[in-house]
Amino acid sequence: MPTKNTKKPKQKVDNTVFVGSKPVMTYVLAVVTQINNGPYNQVTIKARGRAISRAVDTAEIVRNKFVKNLIISEIKIGTESVKNEKGLDSNVSTIEICLLKKN
Amino acid sequence: MPTKNTKKPKQKVDNTVFVGSKPVMTYVLAVVTQINNGPYNQVTIKARGRAISRAVDTAEIVRNKFVKNLIISEIKIGTESVKNEKGLDSNVSTIEICLLKKN
Repeated sequence: MPTKNTKKPKQKVDNTVFVGSKPVMTYVLAVVTQINNGPYNQVTIKARGRAISRAVDTAEIVRNKFVKNLIISEIKIGTESVKNEKGLDSNVSTIEICLLKKN
Repeated sequence: MPTKNTKKPKQKVDNTVFVGSKPVMTYVLAVVTQINNGPYNQVTIKARGRAISRAVDTAEIVRNKFVKNLIISEIKIGTESVKNEKGLDSNVSTIEICLLKKN
């Protein structure tokens, strides 16, 4: 059962794209837009739980299909503690993929 | 049994755990067994597609609950081309997480 209260708001905090349960091309578009139009030459893709595989898909599609001069500067994994619908703590894995634009 | 403490051994086929669709504790057990009983001080966890998030779960559970002196030495992501059931090529994302035992 997916937890309803932990849904990530779609926030535009500088150069970070949070990947959730929408189709992967939504996030690909967000990353490409950030890289091409944003003030930074680096974008961080973050996800947790089952969205982790979609975050990897996003990074790979952006690199292979849309922005060729990107390198993966860093990949971090971790664990976050979240409250589930019963109010109990449960651990969820996280990933952060940093994409850096080569000049 | 010779120990290679001075040099990091390159990954071999036999210290790799492939994560698929079984419960995550299956893979956690496989990794812990490899690290504690295998000849290598390094284990690589590989997965592709939707199993990627389970691979991250595996690495995090091993590190946080079972083998405390592990570091993540490398995380790689990539894309593989596979034939689907219709015989068409389709791309799938992959992940490799290298866990290294500190002495």
